[in-house]
Amino acid sequence: MSVVTLAVDAMGGDHGLSVTVPAVAKMLSRHAHLNIILVGQAEPLAEAVQKAGLSGHVRLEIQPATEVVAMDDPVAVALRQKKDSSMRVAINMVKEGRAQAAVSAGNTGALMAVSRFVLKTLPGVDRPAICTAIPTATGHCHMLDLGANVDSEPEHLMQFALMGQALVRAVDGVSQPSVALLNIGEEDIKGNEQIKEAAALLKAAPDMNYVGFVEGNGIFAGEADVVVCDGFVGNVSLKTMEGVAKMIGNMIREEIGHSWLRKLSGLLALPVLSGLKKRMDPDRYNGASLVGLRGIVVKSHGGTSEQGFLSALEVAEVEARRNVPALISDALAPAATAGQDH
Amino acid sequence: MSVVTLAVDAMGGDHGLSVTVPAVAKMLSRHAHLNIILVGQAEPLAEAVQKAGLSGHVRLEIQPATEVVAMDDPVAVALRQKKDSSMRVAINMVKEGRAQAAVSAGNTGALMAVSRFVLKTLPGVDRPAICTAIPTATGHCHMLDLGANVDSEPEHLMQFALMGQALVRAVDGVSQPSVALLNIGEEDIKGNEQIKEAAALLKAAPDMNYVGFVEGNGIFAGEADVVVCDGFVGNVSLKTMEGVAKMIGNMIREEIGHSWLRKLSGLLALPVLSGLKKRMDPDRYNGASLVGLRGIVVKSHGGTSEQGFLSALEVAEVEARRNVPALISDALAPAATAGQDH
Repeated sequence: MSVVTLAVDAMGGDHGLSVTVPAVAKMLSRHAHLNIILVGQAEPLAEAVQKAGLSGHVRLEIQPATEVVAMDDPVAVALRQKKDSSMRVAINMVKEGRAQAAVSAGNTGALMAVSRFVLKTLPGVDRPAICTAIPTATGHCHMLDLGANVDSEPEHLMQFALMGQALVRAVDGVSQPSVALLNIGEEDIKGNEQIKEAAALLKAAPDMNYVGFVEGNGIFAGEADVVVCDGFVGNVSLKTMEGVAKMIGNMIREEIGHSWLRKLSGLLALPVLSGLKKRMDPDRYNGASLVGLRGIVVKSHGGTSEQGFLSALEVAEVEARRNVPALISDALAPAATAGQDH
Repeated sequence: MSVVTLAVDAMGGDHGLSVTVPAVAKMLSRHAHLNIILVGQAEPLAEAVQKAGLSGHVRLEIQPATEVVAMDDPVAVALRQKKDSSMRVAINMVKEGRAQAAVSAGNTGALMAVSRFVLKTLPGVDRPAICTAIPTATGHCHMLDLGANVDSEPEHLMQFALMGQALVRAVDGVSQPSVALLNIGEEDIKGNEQIKEAAALLKAAPDMNYVGFVEGNGIFAGEADVVVCDGFVGNVSLKTMEGVAKMIGNMIREEIGHSWLRKLSGLLALPVLSGLKKRMDPDRYNGASLVGLRGIVVKSHGGTSEQGFLSALEVAEVEARRNVPALISDALAPAATAGQDH
């Protein structure tokens, strides 16, 4: 098995080093053919590495970076002022070929802007997109775009579909993933012009298992392996999911707290609730891919736990091992590829 | 207390008479100052009325209609071919002033099209919208538009805000409801042009408690009394909520079914789960308002239960009693109103 190297922004996210470094320790012990470059401010990083028992680990490299992109830094600050940020240096590692993927829990806007500036988009890709796995009744699907783009044209939705298809083929091993377009109720005015035109493009695409429209509730019914949408709609849908799941979780806790009888029954319900938690666990589904770039960048939720950051590292590892950007490039530039054959 | 009359499409929805008529029976027994006109096909309706013990009820009127709009009928069929449908006749009752509100569990597209055609929009309203209450951590909010419109212009979002504000003032008795615009992550490219322009309009509006952007997860945090969005985005968000809640419910049931120990603990967890169900109950939040029309039309979920249809009847009753269309008209045509004052 070949060795894969991940560059990790150790400083990003709400909890920074206290989450990223322990997760890296677990990741290294899980995977024998994996190197990790931890990027961050020298002193606190060295301290965290020592605390995690990683000092002198043969498959761990430390790359100093003097600056940190704050969670509320505007994109312009991250892009123009903090050129030695841990986020940017980690992405530089990918650009320079020293790592196959970068992982950061830093702010999404900055991460997308810096990734796009440093790595550039793949040929045939107008706009990179954000894609993540979403739990469904039957397993999971991949949904994109989740907020990198607003006002996507039909051609962009088509590109998202091709990128999502290539990603799912690579990471889930599904040869002909089903692809759906997110739309509103079928009995109603069936979507806007953008969606109708995108549907026509997807229908006409060769080598695409297009299954039609899916509604917001259909995402979770396992109706499609890839759900394609504009970033505005996708972001609202994703955040709606998070909001509902969190509210239900809080309500369960409140209901349990209501009385001693309920506390007792709540205690007895723990196996059920932990089974539920395992299946809906946001940690388990942490790790969104920035697709369409000349390199792999995985975005972890800013407020994630050690376990969640570990999931994001796993996403990056799989994508690096399967070389997802090359697969996306093949899917998006069939003309160029065909040209090479002749 | 004055008497309010509701016209009920007895045939609409997945379950038709078996749900609508028993719900009407309960509604009549709950409210002494309420008349109901049941609209439907004479024979089956008479049978259902008798079965529900409503024959000869002094506050119940039967209005025959020969046709039924099927759940999958295209809008054009409902509008042009089925002119004697129970849905249309119920809306005609409102138009003729014989009822103050119509309630139907029939298909949304048909209901909106027929309502708009028969009742017409209020002065100052370019596009009617669909609005419903959504459960939040602190109670509920009202969200609109939920699918009547796609590609809403900033001016339309402004009208939705005014209509939502008037509705919440009337039905919840909140004098200055907080109003938010649904948008994507603040750290990202902050929304599209449409949202930015709508924000400027809302900020500049007198007598509007505009609280800024809310994200998909913020809907449930109780951040705003009125959440305004384009119908495409709102419909995807609403259906996403339904999908997540349903998936979690199914997962709880599956987890309980996994083993005898879990079945036992699941049984003991019933008080907790029923408390949860009560708060998230889709029946309780059933009943979406078609706002912006010259009359009240309430849309019940097609697959709802008797209890759910009862909730939709309650929504219609409150709106009729408070005369919501007049309040919306005042809010949307301030110039006309101001003119009358001088």
